[in-house]
Parts: sequence; C-alpha cells; structure tokens
Amino acid sequence: MRKVAVLGAGSWGTALAIVLADNGHEVRLWAHRQEHVDEINQTRRNNKYLDVDIPDAITAFHDMKEAVKDADAVVIVVPTKAIREVCQQLKDDIHSSTQIIHATKGIEPGSLKRVSEMISEEIPDFPYENIVVLSGPSHAEEVALRHPTTVSVSAVNLDRARQAQDLFNSENLRVYTSDDILGIEVGGALKNIIALGAGISDGLGYGDNAKAALITRGLAEIARLGTSLGANPLSFLGLSGVGDLIVTCTSVHSRNWRAGNLLGKGMNLDQVLEEMGMVVEGVRTVQAAHQFAEEQGVEMPITQGIFQVLFEDKKPKDVVDELMSRNKRQEMDDISNLLKERYSDK
Amino acid sequence: MRKVAVLGAGSWGTALAIVLADNGHEVRLWAHRQEHVDEINQTRRNNKYLDVDIPDAITAFHDMKEAVKDADAVVIVVPTKAIREVCQQLKDDIHSSTQIIHATKGIEPGSLKRVSEMISEEIPDFPYENIVVLSGPSHAEEVALRHPTTVSVSAVNLDRARQAQDLFNSENLRVYTSDDILGIEVGGALKNIIALGAGISDGLGYGDNAKAALITRGLAEIARLGTSLGANPLSFLGLSGVGDLIVTCTSVHSRNWRAGNLLGKGMNLDQVLEEMGMVVEGVRTVQAAHQFAEEQGVEMPITQGIFQVLFEDKKPKDVVDELMSRNKRQEMDDISNLLKERYSDK
Repeated sequence: MRKVAVLGAGSWGTALAIVLADNGHEVRLWAHRQEHVDEINQTRRNNKYLDVDIPDAITAFHDMKEAVKDADAVVIVVPTKAIREVCQQLKDDIHSSTQIIHATKGIEPGSLKRVSEMISEEIPDFPYENIVVLSGPSHAEEVALRHPTTVSVSAVNLDRARQAQDLFNSENLRVYTSDDILGIEVGGALKNIIALGAGISDGLGYGDNAKAALITRGLAEIARLGTSLGANPLSFLGLSGVGDLIVTCTSVHSRNWRAGNLLGKGMNLDQVLEEMGMVVEGVRTVQAAHQFAEEQGVEMPITQGIFQVLFEDKKPKDVVDELMSRNKRQEMDDISNLLKERYSDK
Repeated sequence: MRKVAVLGAGSWGTALAIVLADNGHEVRLWAHRQEHVDEINQTRRNNKYLDVDIPDAITAFHDMKEAVKDADAVVIVVPTKAIREVCQQLKDDIHSSTQIIHATKGIEPGSLKRVSEMISEEIPDFPYENIVVLSGPSHAEEVALRHPTTVSVSAVNLDRARQAQDLFNSENLRVYTSDDILGIEVGGALKNIIALGAGISDGLGYGDNAKAALITRGLAEIARLGTSLGANPLSFLGLSGVGDLIVTCTSVHSRNWRAGNLLGKGMNLDQVLEEMGMVVEGVRTVQAAHQFAEEQGVEMPITQGIFQVLFEDKKPKDVVDELMSRNKRQEMDDISNLLKERYSDK
C-alpha cells in the first residue's frame, strides 16, 4: 500500500483515484472547491462528474499541503490552463523522490510547451526525466465502471514509467510503458485537430472513405510534426496515437467533432462557439500546431486547411478540393527519411 | 488516353472502371457471366453491385482474350479464390511491358501466399517487382459517387507504382505511392481479424475504451507480424493500415464485425455462420495469421485469443480476462528493435 495524492477531482481524476483505491492504495483526492470536497467525503459520490460510488480508501481534501503530505506519488489531473498554478502551490511540498505523474492532455498556447515541460518549469528542482505522463483511449466513465481499458505511461527515465505502471496496472486497466514522453504528449494533444476535421468531413456530407482519409493523413502529419520534434513515430501507432484518435473521432459525444460538424454545415467559428456555449479545446490546439509547423518548417496541409476554415473564413469545401489536388506524393516518405536519420546516428 | 482492362465487374471492379473512364481512358470491363456483360452494355447499369450509371467509355466483355488485347494496363479485381484461375486465362496474352495492378485483399489459406505472389506464380514470365497492389479505405459505392477517397498503390519497383498513380489519380481519388507491397498487402488482409475482435468486444457489452484497445493492440500485433516478414512498420500507420481499419471497424455493415458481435453475445462459430448464411473472410484470415505467427515465432495474443473463440469454443470473456492479465509490457518495444535493425543495416 502506498500513499497517493490525486490533484483534480473532475471525471478523469476521480476515475484514476478509484483505480488506485481498487489497487489497495490510500488515496487523497484534492478538489478545487470546498463543497466538492464535502460532497465526496460525506456522500461518497461525485455526481457532477461520475455516476459511481466512491470507495472508502479515498478521502477528499481542499488543502493541497495536507493532500500531498508524505505522499509517495502525486498524480496531476487538472486542465492545461491550471497546471502552472497547481504546480506553484505544490512545489515546496514535493521532493525529488516523490513520483510525479500527470494525466492532462494539452499544449500551452503561445509558449507551445507540453504539460511535462510546464511542470518542470514550475518545479525546477524536480528532475525532468522523472516526470511521467499517463495517456490513452480512456473515457473516465468506463474506467470508473471497471470496463477493460488500456493506457500508456511514459517518462524519459523508463524506471519511473515502470513505477507508475505498477501503481495503476490492474485487472481492468492494462498499463503499457514507453520512454517517448514527447510522442505520447504530442499525440494526446494534437488528436483534437483531427476530431475537428472528422466533424467537418461529416458535416459536408462526405462518407466513410473521406473520414478515414482525413484521420489517416491527419495522423501522418501529426507523426511528421512529432518526429521532427524528436518523437518516435511508432508512438503514433500506439494507444496515445491511433487508440485515442479512434475514441475521439468515432464518438458523437466529442465536443471537437460536434464543433467540426457545425463548421462543415456552413457555420463560422463565432456561430459555432455561440451555439456550443463552451470551450472547444481543438480550436486552441489548431492554433498551436499551426504555429509549431511554421517554426519547424513541417508541412501540415490538413491542419493548415482547418486553420483557414476557423480563422480565415475559408469554405470547407474549397479546403477539401485543394487537399485532393495537391502534388502527388509517396506515403510516409518524409517520416521514413527522419527514421533513417534517427537510427543511423545511433 | 490508354487502354485498360479491368477484370472483375463486382462493386469494386466497376467503381475502379468508372474512375478510369472519368480520367479519359478506354476501359474494357471483363465479367464472369454473359448476362452481366449484356446488362452493362445494353442498359449502362450494374444494378446488382452499384447504383450509378456506367459511363460510355466502359465496354463489358465476356471473352478475356478480347478484353486484354492491346491493353496498356490490366487491373485484377476478383476474389482471392479466383486469382489463380483468372491468371491462368490471362498469362498467354500479357507481356512484361503491360502494367499489372491488383485490388484484391486476402491471403491464400494453406499456402499463406499474398495476392501478388499468387499472380507471380501463375504468370512466371512477368517480373514480380512490376506487380502493383491498390489498397486503402474505399467503399466502392462512395468511389462510384465521386466522394473524396484516398488509396495507396505499391510495387517493389516504385516506377510501376507511379505509373499506376498516374492512371488512377483524379480530383476525387487521391493516390499515394509506396514501395512496400508486402506491408500494404498484409495490412489490407489482416485488418479483418481486428474487425472480428471489435465485434466480439461490442457483443460482450464493453465500451469504447475496450474497442480502442483492441484495435490499437491488434494493429500493433499485425505490424509486428508484418515487420517480421519484412514490411516497413510505417505502412501500418498508413491508408492500408490505420485507414482501412477505421472504415472496417466503425461500419456496422462489415460482415466481420457482425460475426464477431454474435460471437461476443454467446453464439459459437457454427451458429454464427448459419445465422449469417455467407462467407466471413475474417474467419479464414484468423487461421492464416495464426499459422503465420507460429511459423515466424511472432507473439499475436489477440489473434490467438480469437482463434480459440472460433475453433476451440473458448469463452470470449475468458480470453479478455487473460489478455488483460498478461505480463506487463513496454509499448512497441519489439517493433522498435526491428526498426533499429532495419535502418542501421542500410
């Protein structure tokens, strides 16, 4: 049994806390708001986020200091925009022997930092190679219901990834390790772009062929960007790439898909955001990826096309026509070349 | 304008003939039965297979000699089990300057030959490196309706793949080239195993996480088998891998998914085949892949599990429990090692 603090009591944080409790650990679940803490401790429910009972091994806290005191591991599961603030609260109470695992998908707009980089900047004494990401195709509701699920944990230091694997692996949650934290984080964040694109294709009334083309060629361009940044292209074939993409692009519950669908039907971005009345993460991700691609000199025609639809009022149909009439290409040629460089150097 | 013979007037052969006619070529469409030939030539329809009008540039033939006479290219689109017979009829009328392109997905049971290998065995004078495969996520109906679609063409001799690209590429069909014919053929054939598995998972009542896990880890094991046979693992990230898989696993029209779904709900194989009343290609593919894996010494736990459900009356639930409790693993570790070997040799 170990002491684990889970920071963030939304649906994913709560589901991961349940996994840890099932595995026999003592879990302290930190929530941002007091009434949320009281609900969990008094009613053993977290009704706003999940329709399951909370095991007794989980105690909710509002004071982060208390939650992380003597913890063997700290799991960060807050939105990307709250990462820096949470780390600032955390940094004086954590030492380098503690495990830090985050399960947040995103890229910081402007800085283009990945979540592990943001954590490292805010807690500079903690060695970057020991930060672990947990990612993969995982609706929180299904994990909380103990349905079979798989995820990857990844760190530059593979021993730390293995420790996280030991912590979370169970008969319902199968955990794979990876030493490619960059590829796992980039795959998890950028998949939302493709979900937007899949929605646009469906909104235009195109069929399965067009959507499969968009997903496959979109994945290829994410892999191209990731590989140029130093990721292993095989990570995009894995749970945080293909796996997460399948869950996102085939679920009509995906916000990004729904936003894309409205764009494909002829709305512009302002109308879509008004209609949906909530944040669409993929919109910010398209901006970040577009900026990344320009800085890296990487060709990302699908991302660029979606950028033009979102921010330059270009018609989706015109973007598709242009994508279909580009110069003829060899499949995977540039990734192959990057791979040759990668392995011939070593 | 070129003269192209298309052998096989089912839905996919007819759709490809329409693409070629739209591109300005003279198309001779060979059909197995005379009444089928008459219907196409007299009514400009092929109602059994496609609900579209047949362009005037297409003429149907029942005599194969006539169909392939002076053809610049021959496109073979018949079921796997008819490949050898068609090639025997063809072999005296084809010379090595003719393009041979096939668009048939399958592995021959018993011999474990890919379609291009079967063609090469039956037409031994034709150089293997010039045989082209065309594959990708492409419902024939959508291609015939001119919806946006992408496919790969692949040959050991990349020049031949480029010629096929020039022949088929259009504003509605975007064609990519590849020099990995083995990877493209293996991906197209083995995807049916995963479709069966996705159906089983849905039949058991598991959720999106489980299905995404199955598709992703299934793809990883197909890539593992393919790479051990000499394929480029990146091909499985492409249109004939991920792309075709998405179309197959997310369409309820897929026979393989439906068969799997009935297995997951508790029927055994005999009951499923009786209920469906037609051939389920994936069942034969599971046998072939299982044999392949044993011969190559490649670990394919999902394929093995499906094999046990199909032929050893094992309960799907027990297979899932065993898959979830296997030894802990690193994601993509063995493929990474094969890749390092591949690229450091060159």
